[in-house]
Amino acid sequence: MADTVHLTLDEVQALALTVLGHHGVCQAQAQAMARVMLAGERDECHSHGLFRLLMCVESLRGGRVVRDAQPQVEHRSMAVVAVDAQCGFSPLAFEVGSAHLVEKVRHSGIAALVINRCFHFSALWPEVEHLTRQGLCALVMTPSHACVAPAGGRLPVFGTNPIAFGWPRGEGDPYVFDFATSAIARGEIDLYRRSGRTLPEGWGIDEHGHPSTDAATVLQRGAMLTFGGYKGSALSTMIELLAGPLLGDLTSQESLSLDGRLGGAPQHGELILAFDPCFFSRRDADADQASAERLFQAIAGQGARLPSQRRFEARARSLARGVFVARALHQDILSLMA
Amino acid sequence: MADTVHLTLDEVQALALTVLGHHGVCQAQAQAMARVMLAGERDECHSHGLFRLLMCVESLRGGRVVRDAQPQVEHRSMAVVAVDAQCGFSPLAFEVGSAHLVEKVRHSGIAALVINRCFHFSALWPEVEHLTRQGLCALVMTPSHACVAPAGGRLPVFGTNPIAFGWPRGEGDPYVFDFATSAIARGEIDLYRRSGRTLPEGWGIDEHGHPSTDAATVLQRGAMLTFGGYKGSALSTMIELLAGPLLGDLTSQESLSLDGRLGGAPQHGELILAFDPCFFSRRDADADQASAERLFQAIAGQGARLPSQRRFEARARSLARGVFVARALHQDILSLMA
Repeated sequence: MADTVHLTLDEVQALALTVLGHHGVCQAQAQAMARVMLAGERDECHSHGLFRLLMCVESLRGGRVVRDAQPQVEHRSMAVVAVDAQCGFSPLAFEVGSAHLVEKVRHSGIAALVINRCFHFSALWPEVEHLTRQGLCALVMTPSHACVAPAGGRLPVFGTNPIAFGWPRGEGDPYVFDFATSAIARGEIDLYRRSGRTLPEGWGIDEHGHPSTDAATVLQRGAMLTFGGYKGSALSTMIELLAGPLLGDLTSQESLSLDGRLGGAPQHGELILAFDPCFFSRRDADADQASAERLFQAIAGQGARLPSQRRFEARARSLARGVFVARALHQDILSLMA
Repeated sequence: MADTVHLTLDEVQALALTVLGHHGVCQAQAQAMARVMLAGERDECHSHGLFRLLMCVESLRGGRVVRDAQPQVEHRSMAVVAVDAQCGFSPLAFEVGSAHLVEKVRHSGIAALVINRCFHFSALWPEVEHLTRQGLCALVMTPSHACVAPAGGRLPVFGTNPIAFGWPRGEGDPYVFDFATSAIARGEIDLYRRSGRTLPEGWGIDEHGHPSTDAATVLQRGAMLTFGGYKGSALSTMIELLAGPLLGDLTSQESLSLDGRLGGAPQHGELILAFDPCFFSRRDADADQASAERLFQAIAGQGARLPSQRRFEARARSLARGVFVARALHQDILSLMA
């Protein structure tokens, strides 16, 4: 028996919808969530594909997620719109809010979408790409659950705090990055723990703040580290502030306190900024894009990778032939309906 | 003879004004520049204090800087204002533009200030602090001269590309960071070269893209590296895009091509974003600030430093007793008028 299951993209989406429906998630919420999981599976971002059904169902079982939450929109200014996710998952809140964000940025040149009280399980790049496809630049950030120590410290303060950015490239794939400000994903350290491997240096510390290469120590008694030393730590602090207190929402420590444990989808806020280039430049748009393309060429032309390139290559494959899901994962997903 | 010269803060400012005046810089430009140099000297950021007079005079002698440039303001939308620095230095352009930025952000919640065609020699934190003192959050970025290779590459594409962020803290000193996205400042590598010391690993590469700890190799044939590997490289790319093509202004490679050499103040654009918290949160402002303060306490309370703390301590000292300038530097500055 093959150790993978072949699924068409329609089957991926249908599977996600079925599982979420089985757990009582309303159709609007489930469809927005399934679109995000499909995008992850399609792009071979396996950690953010169907795998996330396990986390979402665990969160649903935890009882705090509102299964039929209807995001509420509030216009705060000509350039700021807020969506209260009402303790549902984030994808529907983004879909509802981003339409207003785009409308605002077309008039004001720069605009912000605030999402409050959402349960968050998704990567940020689907949201960034949604905006770049409309010719906009986008910058997105969110806190998570506290598991990362500040540079020079020993106790967890930050979440893995991802930041994502996108630049439109006409009909081509946009320039997109989406990375955690932790040195590595928490799930990656967990994989090292399961397989008994030693961590690379720089990923974590023990309870005294000393470097540790023992995954269990880092996860249970110590803390993860940010990427890039004190600079990464400062960046992670900025994400806490801009996607936490600025929005009247939770920091990663507060989100963890509310939840009581690591592992489920954390509840917190999210900040999405959009820029409409035509308000920022007086040059011809083609000249600006040509300048950006020279930058990309200067990077890729010397053999350095642009971020997301692997993802776009995977997407092309998946659109042509569907996806292959690990059989063990497929079984785990089916048993969510047992 | 003491190897430092004691100056009052008034004397620091007067010295800067005298030197700039001697080189034909108009009063408005010189005053804005002197304020920035005074701030650097006061905060013991020596690399951005009076020392910068050397770089500025070199740029003036280069003949491309317009000594009496009058920044021109253009309103692009309710939330975007642009200032054409007219090939003068950046501080006056910021002073002229920031008043409009503040006015806009009070109405729109988020706003952007675009600065075009400025010669740039200053740190970004004085601008960030100016905005935080008015209760605003600020995010500022700028390219520079290309000397940093992308992760996985070997040729310089990025400048040292600084990014700075500020969060207001009422009457107290704001939370502020301001760092280069290069692993280290270019001037720091030059100091290693002069003293014949070996560079720490991770700062630079040779012309083949291999790690190098030889300062001369890195500066002359190889390239500097970003902080934080491919993540820092992605961040530096974002800064190139948002403070370059987005604004219809130069990337670090284009700026270097225009100038023909490294060393002088580069000419390019700058992007300043401001956020007015009262549009982003529906909670009481005190509750949001209390949450931010808990975050700062969680960092500083475990012995990790908040960025800029040393600078604020130096400021308190300098306000009380003036500053001590290295005698050799003081002589070099006086000889700018010989």
